[in-house]
Amino acid sequence: MTTQDRLAKWDHRAEWALAAVALVFLAAYSIEVLVQPRGFAQHLLDIVTFLTWAVFVVDYFARLYLATDRRKWFLHHLIDLAVVLLPLLRPLRLLRLVVLVSALQEAIGNAIRGRVVIYTVSGAVLLIYVGALAELESERAAAGSHITNFGDAVWWAITTITTVGYGDIYPVTTTGRVIAVLMMIGGISLVGSITATIASWIIHTVSVEDKAHNAVTAAQIDGLHNEIAQLRELLQQRTD
Amino acid sequence: MTTQDRLAKWDHRAEWALAAVALVFLAAYSIEVLVQPRGFAQHLLDIVTFLTWAVFVVDYFARLYLATDRRKWFLHHLIDLAVVLLPLLRPLRLLRLVVLVSALQEAIGNAIRGRVVIYTVSGAVLLIYVGALAELESERAAAGSHITNFGDAVWWAITTITTVGYGDIYPVTTTGRVIAVLMMIGGISLVGSITATIASWIIHTVSVEDKAHNAVTAAQIDGLHNEIAQLRELLQQRTD
Amino acid sequence: MTTQDRLAKWDHRAEWALAAVALVFLAAYSIEVLVQPRGFAQHLLDIVTFLTWAVFVVDYFARLYLATDRRKWFLHHLIDLAVVLLPLLRPLRLLRLVVLVSALQEAIGNAIRGRVVIYTVSGAVLLIYVGALAELESERAAAGSHITNFGDAVWWAITTITTVGYGDIYPVTTTGRVIAVLMMIGGISLVGSITATIASWIIHTVSVEDKAHNAVTAAQIDGLHNEIAQLRELLQQRTD
Amino acid sequence: MTTQDRLAKWDHRAEWALAAVALVFLAAYSIEVLVQPRGFAQHLLDIVTFLTWAVFVVDYFARLYLATDRRKWFLHHLIDLAVVLLPLLRPLRLLRLVVLVSALQEAIGNAIRGRVVIYTVSGAVLLIYVGALAELESERAAAGSHITNFGDAVWWAITTITTVGYGDIYPVTTTGRVIAVLMMIGGISLVGSITATIASWIIHTVSVEDKAHNAVTAAQIDGLHNEIAQLRELLQQRTD
Repeated sequence: MTTQDRLAKWDHRAEWALAAVALVFLAAYSIEVLVQPRGFAQHLLDIVTFLTWAVFVVDYFARLYLATDRRKWFLHHLIDLAVVLLPLLRPLRLLRLVVLVSALQEAIGNAIRGRVVIYTVSGAVLLIYVGALAELESERAAAGSHITNFGDAVWWAITTITTVGYGDIYPVTTTGRVIAVLMMIGGISLVGSITATIASWIIHTVSVEDKAHNAVTAAQIDGLHNEIAQLRELLQQRTD
Repeated sequence: MTTQDRLAKWDHRAEWALAAVALVFLAAYSIEVLVQPRGFAQHLLDIVTFLTWAVFVVDYFARLYLATDRRKWFLHHLIDLAVVLLPLLRPLRLLRLVVLVSALQEAIGNAIRGRVVIYTVSGAVLLIYVGALAELESERAAAGSHITNFGDAVWWAITTITTVGYGDIYPVTTTGRVIAVLMMIGGISLVGSITATIASWIIHTVSVEDKAHNAVTAAQIDGLHNEIAQLRELLQQRTD
Repeated sequence: MTTQDRLAKWDHRAEWALAAVALVFLAAYSIEVLVQPRGFAQHLLDIVTFLTWAVFVVDYFARLYLATDRRKWFLHHLIDLAVVLLPLLRPLRLLRLVVLVSALQEAIGNAIRGRVVIYTVSGAVLLIYVGALAELESERAAAGSHITNFGDAVWWAITTITTVGYGDIYPVTTTGRVIAVLMMIGGISLVGSITATIASWIIHTVSVEDKAHNAVTAAQIDGLHNEIAQLRELLQQRTD
Repeated sequence: MTTQDRLAKWDHRAEWALAAVALVFLAAYSIEVLVQPRGFAQHLLDIVTFLTWAVFVVDYFARLYLATDRRKWFLHHLIDLAVVLLPLLRPLRLLRLVVLVSALQEAIGNAIRGRVVIYTVSGAVLLIYVGALAELESERAAAGSHITNFGDAVWWAITTITTVGYGDIYPVTTTGRVIAVLMMIGGISLVGSITATIASWIIHTVSVEDKAHNAVTAAQIDGLHNEIAQLRELLQQRTD
């Protein structure tokens, strides 16, 4: 068994475990921000959060160890290192949940447009939820803050990713603004995906309807092949 | 006559009746929010609203009864149940009006892009009107509200679905914010449809103009068929 | 000469004259709003504005008179009637300037994407200029108005059609809001055109680059025709 | 060696030198706005800025001198003249950095969509950085200004090019508003590029997946050519 195989095997075995750990991390993070437990509960939560982090660190070093060319793997996975090291990027660990979405989509067996819709919707929901949590955590205690409860944070997250931006609520801290920028980038991509899916659907439907300018299909070319084959057969019979 | 047929027949017979009931509901809802009648008129309006609701309930259970596989139909029509049960989703009953739009479009006999334009325009008008009504109803009495008359509500609805979002007027209640989110989703879809229609038109026009890279049309393939047929005929004549 | 011919001839002859009158109207309107002349100058301006209006009325009735089926022409040109009758729609007379743009474009001899760019840019400039004028006229005297000079009006117009909508400046009168809605619709169409043009360009470039999946061109089909023709000639020679 | 050749040679030789000078200009401009040096350092910075400007002036006149038809070159390069003469357009000199991006892209060897992504990302980063610098410089000293430090300026730049436009921070000076308008135009183009890239990707993937309606490929036409060639060979053998 080659090293390449071992890395692929690890990735395959670990993806469900890491998705489960990402869910635990999401639950712990939600409780930490929304419930703000004190005393023993807080200690317990810190331990759970630390353990989920430890799992991601172990996974990172395991993959680094199993890689054929460790130097190359390290340079191509700098973002994985950043997700493990930087507290601000912790929510990106939830990208591990993509395995759930792709499992769901395999079960339904969708076409490409259906898949784009599923990723867009689940991406939007997760982005709004996690963005609202992170924003609430970093803005709650700031002077002159507008985001002091989860309802306001969700409302802010939605007006931001739709680029409506009323301006009734906006972040005032640097961390809050960095989160806002990440959400705007996410929002533009989501809006772009929606527009693109509609455009793709219209263009496809127009081209199907437009009989007169129909592009030639493989079936029509098969028809030509058949006619030429018959012609050859005829030629062979007559000249024998 | 199979059960499947009976359900299809019910749907066909009921669609115009339900569109009419949806119009009555729209009228009653408009009067309730805009005129805010008191005393006898209010009672009358409550009765009309209740009757339109009763018709939708009857339609729901009739379709459930007529379905071949009731369990499956129930699971595939959970959204119909929600529209019947949840007061917040009442405006979705107006989706029944889609039959009017499709009748209009059949009369004109439009191509796909024309149809997208008709649905986009009528969808936008209905979304703005109903959204403004619902927002006015839920915001009017709230403390610190900005939306206290129908003119302001329409203005807010338009700045929201176009994603301009000046921020001079914005909802402050939870219900108002939920309605706003639904309108933003509607707005993004509408803007996406407009962009997509323009894109489809440009791409189509470019491909028609671009003679040199023209995709092969069925007519050209027919030309090839003809030539091969003549060749065969010639071969048959000469070798006979 | 048929009636149809006479209407087409009128349209052809009148288009440059009407474009000139539209320019005069634009100049008069600009002076009215920006200079706000009093006394004799004001009377002169009113006369010029009235004369440009009279020309559009004459053009409307001339076209109605020359139409083959006047009833049908009337129903298909209700918008022309509205532009002539409603003061709010006066700026739409500037649509007559489209003949200038199409003359410019004929001189340059552009492809479809170039044409979309020219219409988008000239449409955006005219929309911003006229929208700012109209908004300034209707908001200037209103209580609590934010738009009191032309610079602010242009700034507002640009933040509106780009859907940025800071909310530092927004209309407060009903007329001002109606103008704002028309500008948002124009803005969404402009943004849509830009996105669509870029999309069309990318899709075209991708399909040209993507040699392996190249759609069959007419030239390739011509190659097949040639080969079949040679085959027929060969067959004819040999069997003679 | 013709004049045309000499101009092309100059362009080729000068592009890396000008990119380097553009980087020096960017560094000097950043220090000027962010550090605001006084005394000797300020004089030194003024000299560096003047020298970078002089290089661009020399490049402009060298290209004008080397052009075959100087009148035509002058008319086709009015924008180059404006960039050299108008202080407001100084940041456009950074467009010379495009040679760095295209060198990077050649090294990676990307397809068209990859190239659009690289230009979009590097364009967005440069637009935000330079826009924030220019805005800070023109707004800092204005009465009632909201943009008084670089952090706020970057935050404003991002909310503007994403068209979110909260309205917590907006320019109040005329120069600041002109810069804002340029950034909105840039923002719309960037958002359009993102949407268009996604649309192109979806449309491409759909057409590849959609086996039944596959457009005919050159390979299939080659198959037809082969069959006809075999047919001819057969005909030749038999009738000899």
